[in-house]
Amino acid sequence: MDVDRTKIRWNGWGWAAHKDELGAQEAVWTWLAGELGMPALLATPARPLEDLSFPAPALYAEDRQALNAIVGADRVRDDAYERAFHALGRSYYDLLRLRAGELSLAPDAVVYPRGTEEVLAVLALAADHGIAVIPYGGGTSVVGGVTAARGVFHSAITLDLSAMDRVIEVDPVCTTATAEAGIYGPALEKALQAKGFTLGHHPQSFEFSTLGGWIAHRGAGQGSNRYGRAEDWLVGAKLATPRGLLVTGDFPASAAGPQLKDLIPGSEGVFGIITEATVRVRALPAASAYVGYMFRDFESGMTALRMAAQEGVAATMLRLSDMEETRFFRVYGAMAKRRSLARRFAEMYLEMRGFGEKACALIAGFEGKAVAHAAKQFGAIARRHGALPLGRGMGEQWRRTRFQAPYLRDPMLDRGLGVDTLETAANWSKIGTLYAATRAAIEAAILKSVPRNGAKGIVMCHVSHSYADGASLYFTAIFPRVLDGDIAQWKAIKQAASEAVVANGGTISHHHGVGEDHLPWIAQEKGALGIEVLRAIKQTLDPAGVLNPGKLLPR
Amino acid sequence: MDVDRTKIRWNGWGWAAHKDELGAQEAVWTWLAGELGMPALLATPARPLEDLSFPAPALYAEDRQALNAIVGADRVRDDAYERAFHALGRSYYDLLRLRAGELSLAPDAVVYPRGTEEVLAVLALAADHGIAVIPYGGGTSVVGGVTAARGVFHSAITLDLSAMDRVIEVDPVCTTATAEAGIYGPALEKALQAKGFTLGHHPQSFEFSTLGGWIAHRGAGQGSNRYGRAEDWLVGAKLATPRGLLVTGDFPASAAGPQLKDLIPGSEGVFGIITEATVRVRALPAASAYVGYMFRDFESGMTALRMAAQEGVAATMLRLSDMEETRFFRVYGAMAKRRSLARRFAEMYLEMRGFGEKACALIAGFEGKAVAHAAKQFGAIARRHGALPLGRGMGEQWRRTRFQAPYLRDPMLDRGLGVDTLETAANWSKIGTLYAATRAAIEAAILKSVPRNGAKGIVMCHVSHSYADGASLYFTAIFPRVLDGDIAQWKAIKQAASEAVVANGGTISHHHGVGEDHLPWIAQEKGALGIEVLRAIKQTLDPAGVLNPGKLLPR
Repeated sequence: MDVDRTKIRWNGWGWAAHKDELGAQEAVWTWLAGELGMPALLATPARPLEDLSFPAPALYAEDRQALNAIVGADRVRDDAYERAFHALGRSYYDLLRLRAGELSLAPDAVVYPRGTEEVLAVLALAADHGIAVIPYGGGTSVVGGVTAARGVFHSAITLDLSAMDRVIEVDPVCTTATAEAGIYGPALEKALQAKGFTLGHHPQSFEFSTLGGWIAHRGAGQGSNRYGRAEDWLVGAKLATPRGLLVTGDFPASAAGPQLKDLIPGSEGVFGIITEATVRVRALPAASAYVGYMFRDFESGMTALRMAAQEGVAATMLRLSDMEETRFFRVYGAMAKRRSLARRFAEMYLEMRGFGEKACALIAGFEGKAVAHAAKQFGAIARRHGALPLGRGMGEQWRRTRFQAPYLRDPMLDRGLGVDTLETAANWSKIGTLYAATRAAIEAAILKSVPRNGAKGIVMCHVSHSYADGASLYFTAIFPRVLDGDIAQWKAIKQAASEAVVANGGTISHHHGVGEDHLPWIAQEKGALGIEVLRAIKQTLDPAGVLNPGKLLPR
Repeated sequence: MDVDRTKIRWNGWGWAAHKDELGAQEAVWTWLAGELGMPALLATPARPLEDLSFPAPALYAEDRQALNAIVGADRVRDDAYERAFHALGRSYYDLLRLRAGELSLAPDAVVYPRGTEEVLAVLALAADHGIAVIPYGGGTSVVGGVTAARGVFHSAITLDLSAMDRVIEVDPVCTTATAEAGIYGPALEKALQAKGFTLGHHPQSFEFSTLGGWIAHRGAGQGSNRYGRAEDWLVGAKLATPRGLLVTGDFPASAAGPQLKDLIPGSEGVFGIITEATVRVRALPAASAYVGYMFRDFESGMTALRMAAQEGVAATMLRLSDMEETRFFRVYGAMAKRRSLARRFAEMYLEMRGFGEKACALIAGFEGKAVAHAAKQFGAIARRHGALPLGRGMGEQWRRTRFQAPYLRDPMLDRGLGVDTLETAANWSKIGTLYAATRAAIEAAILKSVPRNGAKGIVMCHVSHSYADGASLYFTAIFPRVLDGDIAQWKAIKQAASEAVVANGGTISHHHGVGEDHLPWIAQEKGALGIEVLRAIKQTLDPAGVLNPGKLLPR
């Protein structure tokens, strides 16, 4: 296919060729085991693909031929690698299953269409013949958004959009760009930057995720304060459905009733498949600065974020770690012996004298013409709230490694450790309670899941995005895996965390989406009548229900 | 009732006590007749309410009693004034009918609920008994949004929300406010400003329109560059429907699927009745400045607007008149002999030497802490595009009279003149063609409608709102009324304009809404499948179809 899937890990994160620098740092692992109360780490390698067997493709020969006729036989794949690669997304729960060789959910075939017409033809066929269709961009969902579940259908195909990666137009007058939905982040940015523009959408999955995926799950990049979330930068889209093509307008704004384009971000392939999108782009920033601050505690940091948002400081990113995350990365950074990092953290440490256990690090990013002005405005707010400026080193270090964190999961999973993330958002009046309750729920669920011998988890959090009325919280938990029950352990932790989120006024997701994993809580968030509304939209566009069964909408 | 409807004109604009200053300015009228190629103006007064008769209320006695039981008998009104007041909105088309005493569409009763529970009870009754319900805020719709049409039902009631005007909470931490939907603009601003905040939503109808109405028609205030459109500042709402209450979340952002709150702006009372809303507010601006500029032509002014939006200049408002509008207000201002205005225009005129017939005026408004910075940035852009700064006089004059223009319609209608406005938006690549085509279509339709004796219309336009990717166009047409066929004349002009709008990439409305008047063009804008989606939502929330029949969704 046009993107070589074999260069990307089928059961882990990122490039197959990525070198695991952390693996060689034994001191880090010893420290981590100590932090988790584990006498020693374990060896828990993933099973290789060659050892696995999975169900024979269930696709009827007639359906296979019909698919061949639409896209060409070479674009309908059912070899083991393709099926394994597309079986699941890349959440911790997915990795547990992929590494264990649990591939019962592999699609019966992976189809690579080359354009909207082919997608429409495949959908018409699927609706007619009763074949589940799982839309697939980069496949990096961490909420079960691309699980190849067939629902009530006999067979399931994954529709991989990665061959639909053309940039159709960059309009310098409207500062918009139109591209096919399967284009990956780096390819899109390369094309835009060649013309002096950027979309500025940089989720942690940037290198391995696609334009269509960003929209479908309603994502937010790390710099969304400046560049907006998917729903902000989306101008219009083509949505291929079993009922035909839905084309939304390209207006800068409209009062002609509710806007259909608002139904597309977050639709998760359940209403249709985004085949093209027009997005707002911006001139490449003339300058940028990413700087560090240390706050005395989480609360004063949050107040500074709130003031910055409410006073309209033009920050690109404000990312505030809680005391656990700050402590973890300070020690981890020093331990990892990456020289520059270690040095910077040592410098930081000196500067931080007087900042105790409760100290919280913040990275502030600024881009554009008014970098100096915005940085100065934020600096004044930060100092007013007791923060110590740490300069550019920490900020630029973060920026250089901004897409690297997911690579840490695989070596952890190789050593008997579990690691999961979850995120939410709430308004400022609720966020303190939400933070405390969610953190406590995760810690308690981990403790309950591990042997009572001193083992425990590490629960860290940062505010990843902030708004005038509220902010998001991004939690990371590292814990000793219960080897004979790691899936049950994950489910118990996930359930406890999610219940705490919804009980304390948080949304079940700020930028990851719903997928399968957040389904149990979506009705509580939307209300029964709200779910009926979404279901009615689904029923109109996909009456046979073949699109992405089991995602977004509870049964 | 809690807002005294008798103080507001039932067949014209605004306060009944408003003094018609223009009426006494004979020179203005003579000039206007000349401009329109009319030998003389006519006397075409409105019919007084006392002379009119309209259909007896069709409400069944049993339904009337059930309504009395829900809200109290004193809150179910069917006197002539109440029925006439609520029969139609306040568009030119509405005024033609109201002034002619055409009241066949008067509601059978006007119901004034005091809270969400009463609204829900009325809706349940209406759905059960088959009574059309027309939601009503301030009733200033100019697109037929509140026409008391009964559709297929025997009777129709207007649900006037003006008694639901409580401010429930102003949250200074979240910078949000929650209020009942029936609150009028000035009352809401008074409550907010008492606590140091503002919503900043100032449509021309500000004094006579309500929070719920602003949201329902997806409005944009004059300062929406800074404060956002209704869909931007809306955090969440309660929507009362015949199926129960839909309560949306109050999250600052969420990726938990499509957001139900996005379906509320623009729903025009067809999906449900907004009873409460939580909105983002901002600190009262520390400073403000409204200044004037004169551009050499419309095109250079538009380029400056585009640059300002794309470079992120923090303007509150940028309002650029085309050459016709500029010329009209220069002459009109001088003619009207309002001293300060005349003087200012005279000053302007002197300054404008060297600026020819094509000169276009722009008002730039800035509010907040960074007024000086933003004004300077815009000034640089304006000068780069050949504009002459005219200082604050013109800007502040505009600001003082910002809500006065609609009062000009009634004296015009009294004198045989017609006046209508319409607005659209498109992206920057299309806006030049859209402007020329729409303007030409309106001019041609007027010419076609009037006797061939030199009579013609005046067609003016301004860019009212601008965005990084496009802008809105607001047209005003003044023309000699065809007295024996003024409705047919209006329809012909409206049709020609609307066809030009949709044929040239414009939305059928940028901030007025769809109502009845834009219904013929909505399917073209949304597509057949898009209309099906909206219909499915309607069907879920209002299966009996009693809510606001004949608005937004074509049959």
